[in-house]
Amino acid sequence: MDRLPKCAANHTPLSPLTFLPRAASVYFDRLSLIYGSTHFTWGQTYERCLRLASSLRSLNIGKNDVVSVLAPNVPALYEMHFGVPMAGAVLNAINTRLDANNIATILKHSEAKVFFVDYQYVPVASEAMRLLCDSVGSTISRSSIPLVIVIDDVDSPNGIRLGELEYENLLLSGNPNYVPFSDQILDEWDPITLNYTSGTTSAPKGVVYSHRGSYLSTKSLILQWEMKSEPVYLWSLPMFHCNGWTFTWGVAARGGTNVCIRNTCAEDMYHAITVHKVTHMCCAPIVFNILLEGKPKPPHHHNNQSLLSYPVEVLTGGAPPPAALLEKIEELGFHVTHAYGLTEATGPALVCEWQTKWNALPNHEQSKLKARQGVSVLSLAEIDVKDLETMVSVPRDGKSVGEIVLRGSSIMKGYFKDEEATRKAFKNGWFLTGDVGVIHPDGYFEIKDRSKDVIISGGENISSVEVEAVLYRHTNILEAAVVAMPHPFFGETPCAFVTLRSKSVPKNEETKKEREIIEFCRNSLPHFMAPRKVVFLEELPKTATGKIQKFELRALAKTYRPPPTSSSTPQVKSINQHTTTRRPYDHQHPQLEQVLAISRL
Amino acid sequence: MDRLPKCAANHTPLSPLTFLPRAASVYFDRLSLIYGSTHFTWGQTYERCLRLASSLRSLNIGKNDVVSVLAPNVPALYEMHFGVPMAGAVLNAINTRLDANNIATILKHSEAKVFFVDYQYVPVASEAMRLLCDSVGSTISRSSIPLVIVIDDVDSPNGIRLGELEYENLLLSGNPNYVPFSDQILDEWDPITLNYTSGTTSAPKGVVYSHRGSYLSTKSLILQWEMKSEPVYLWSLPMFHCNGWTFTWGVAARGGTNVCIRNTCAEDMYHAITVHKVTHMCCAPIVFNILLEGKPKPPHHHNNQSLLSYPVEVLTGGAPPPAALLEKIEELGFHVTHAYGLTEATGPALVCEWQTKWNALPNHEQSKLKARQGVSVLSLAEIDVKDLETMVSVPRDGKSVGEIVLRGSSIMKGYFKDEEATRKAFKNGWFLTGDVGVIHPDGYFEIKDRSKDVIISGGENISSVEVEAVLYRHTNILEAAVVAMPHPFFGETPCAFVTLRSKSVPKNEETKKEREIIEFCRNSLPHFMAPRKVVFLEELPKTATGKIQKFELRALAKTYRPPPTSSSTPQVKSINQHTTTRRPYDHQHPQLEQVLAISRL
Repeated sequence: MDRLPKCAANHTPLSPLTFLPRAASVYFDRLSLIYGSTHFTWGQTYERCLRLASSLRSLNIGKNDVVSVLAPNVPALYEMHFGVPMAGAVLNAINTRLDANNIATILKHSEAKVFFVDYQYVPVASEAMRLLCDSVGSTISRSSIPLVIVIDDVDSPNGIRLGELEYENLLLSGNPNYVPFSDQILDEWDPITLNYTSGTTSAPKGVVYSHRGSYLSTKSLILQWEMKSEPVYLWSLPMFHCNGWTFTWGVAARGGTNVCIRNTCAEDMYHAITVHKVTHMCCAPIVFNILLEGKPKPPHHHNNQSLLSYPVEVLTGGAPPPAALLEKIEELGFHVTHAYGLTEATGPALVCEWQTKWNALPNHEQSKLKARQGVSVLSLAEIDVKDLETMVSVPRDGKSVGEIVLRGSSIMKGYFKDEEATRKAFKNGWFLTGDVGVIHPDGYFEIKDRSKDVIISGGENISSVEVEAVLYRHTNILEAAVVAMPHPFFGETPCAFVTLRSKSVPKNEETKKEREIIEFCRNSLPHFMAPRKVVFLEELPKTATGKIQKFELRALAKTYRPPPTSSSTPQVKSINQHTTTRRPYDHQHPQLEQVLAISRL
Repeated sequence: MDRLPKCAANHTPLSPLTFLPRAASVYFDRLSLIYGSTHFTWGQTYERCLRLASSLRSLNIGKNDVVSVLAPNVPALYEMHFGVPMAGAVLNAINTRLDANNIATILKHSEAKVFFVDYQYVPVASEAMRLLCDSVGSTISRSSIPLVIVIDDVDSPNGIRLGELEYENLLLSGNPNYVPFSDQILDEWDPITLNYTSGTTSAPKGVVYSHRGSYLSTKSLILQWEMKSEPVYLWSLPMFHCNGWTFTWGVAARGGTNVCIRNTCAEDMYHAITVHKVTHMCCAPIVFNILLEGKPKPPHHHNNQSLLSYPVEVLTGGAPPPAALLEKIEELGFHVTHAYGLTEATGPALVCEWQTKWNALPNHEQSKLKARQGVSVLSLAEIDVKDLETMVSVPRDGKSVGEIVLRGSSIMKGYFKDEEATRKAFKNGWFLTGDVGVIHPDGYFEIKDRSKDVIISGGENISSVEVEAVLYRHTNILEAAVVAMPHPFFGETPCAFVTLRSKSVPKNEETKKEREIIEFCRNSLPHFMAPRKVVFLEELPKTATGKIQKFELRALAKTYRPPPTSSSTPQVKSINQHTTTRRPYDHQHPQLEQVLAISRL
């Protein structure tokens, strides 16, 4: 039986690109994409992607060339997920929250040949290009500098340009009868996209996905989320996060409709849900706050009924969603599924698969179960929680912690041009997530912390996530982060940084308020796990992707002494200056700043 | 990016075997299998499969060794789908409708090392073993003869034996801590099963599936059928058909419950649906007749409501389901999805994906749309309809016929020890299905005929399937088959063979009845397509799998002259003698004879 050979009929490269011609064949006239008053069908989207690929080939872009793009969730970014790899090239969607310096670093590291820039990001892109030119300096050569192509708004063009070329013109000049891979061979291990991590704990790394991994992840996630045929998918999750958790390709696989929005604000999301009958969306838990705070006011919403006339499926991940927040968002009519993943695992790797028997439990029990990270998607061969020193699995008792490790064909190829980081990420045939978790007796995984975020107090491990979950249940707490604070006796002890709904706390009430919160935690946690200190901030320090920068808070926490000394207001100003420099050309909705807390995804 | 290497963490062999440890981990206590009063959980099923694999290894069964089995849908056959390949071996589930001679041929051709035999099939198996021993004759060597292991009924053992060993004892002697593939390497291109085709048009061929193909097919079919989590799956389709259209593995992937039944009769199916709350089942369209004829009588069933208290999802295939039959079965409360496939495509390759807009159409229009074969599953890279001479695609007009061709990683590795047949099956990077079809303007495929079944009349192609579909709409026609009859002027002309609900037709009424049926066809078909002759049989000649043997009917048709000569009753007796020899040891429900018309699947 081993003599039976592979051939072109029975061994085709696995690639999500195959979903597009299939969609164009089966769902030719069905809406593929809606953006403002722009509507495309799958027939049109296929033709546009062929044109784009052909145009890139005529610019001499081909196998393994990197094509970078800086854009919000507009049609062009969607089309590039097919058009760029159909030219044989590798798509690098850059996080739009990054500054010029970060962007220049990525363009240089990725050796991008083309740099697509949405008109809105022209100022930061020009600055990045200036920095890039400076950095290549005396060794300057044309080949080190990408060709810049601006993306004008396809729905309402405004004429803003950066350089000569414009996306829509380039695309329309392409050949609609282009045949992908006619002049090159596609191997399923070939790279398809390059995604830079946000670097919560270290410098950004370029994660390379293969066609094989993306194909398998896409199918597995549709399956695990049970996304049915003909979904209407709202792009509330940036496509630059793990290629939209693979749904850039997944919506094509399902013959769905992509609803693209430039700004992820409550108004636009509710508008899309109402007008286009959105059935599915993904987002970080922080977007729940946007949806809750910005929900339509009565008469549209009566308190005694859910806000939505039908349940909208929401896949959430990126940070453990506090159970209290899950309860609130589901009351509005959203039906939440919780996933856990990382850029290195091609997006969601675990999904909290719901079990029918749980329906009989009270709401808050259900939310607790739903806040767990869950079970592996089918593209993973195996997942486990291990003691990294011995590589022995922890008992499935819901208590013993270890590092979550994964194996399977949906794990990244590795980090681009970083052999050492790649080597460190893999150990004994496992990918190390860097996340600390437990396995419950029922086989469900739960994250307890990032390895670096564990607080070790008197020899006991304290999960900062667990303490944060309790803080989020407090009605007046909007955001919370818990880190280790040095302690002369215990070594470390938890210190909580919180922002309040009522924004500021009068100086003279801080001590009282702090004690009240500590007491609140002690009602739900062992005393050693409750924060010994609570610091009130106006805003928590965040990375460009909106992930809370715990290393800054840890630095801050070192300046405090544990109680009985009273709390003090820290140098909020300096933290804010450091982290929330608002760019003058950033015309986005201010709430967008909060949206993108999806650094691990 | 090409320098990033594959490693054990990011490139694991795709195999449906991975679904079982995952199921045992996540759904440990959930029911995996019900058979009579026997109940297993996923934890137990995993342990049993490990034991089985370990026992086979201790019998020195390993890489690429064939393990044959002759059994109905009992737990042992389910467990072998994991246990046998977990030993590195290749499972060969033999069609239980075959006779001793067929079975001996398969055992010899496959070089089976072990032959598991369900107690019910001991007589035919002993006869097959006798024939096998005779055939190896003077060259007899122990290695040519498989070790026979009987499978006693796990639910109510009866002590029937053939040789020394018994399945349950063998299994229990195995090691539950066995580690699969610890002493051999699994490559995803390795064979996992060997399925002999029923040979409608030629001698049986051994179709080899790879781990990769089975994995991809399983996931794609769950996705395309939208089979949700926690299904209760009734085994109305024999597992020996393409490994139960991959649902042997698929139910594990979904954490479902397998409901095994020994006899596919109406009583047992309705019992399972009622008692175990079956959600999903697969079957050939002919099973619809069993369900319709054997439906529970009132008071359980009131005419004004559907029979089932909730819709049962049914995936059907193997033969184009007549639209009229679809309508009737759906009235009972079954919700039918139509699939098309072949053994060579690892089961269903096309699924008639339902489109929401079709819900607005009248019932009979819906049934017509549903009777089409549909669109490709996601494991196929491409499907097309081509003129085999030029390999040019036909226009998508719903009229132009050509051969349906497939490409993708779910296509078989090839035919075991048959290089010529393998070479013929593949052409220019395509697998040739041998089925003639059209592509409708909406991208949906529809089969018009098996290549050999096309009737060419006066230079016009007539699809026998199309004529049969009309005949099935006739209230008194139970089964129909249309073949070519020689015609002095037109070359060929359609001849219909039918069985009636009212069974026999008095001799003196045959001509009248024939004219009535021809008239009935002419009301729906162009005159040249309507049968020129109608022959009334008590039973149609069938293969061991229940597929109508058109070559016999063609031979019979050659003995007739076209009208105006009147029809005559043909040699029904001889046909019956040839095809429906009932074995004395076959204790099955007589209706089972009709069940297995799934030769192309």
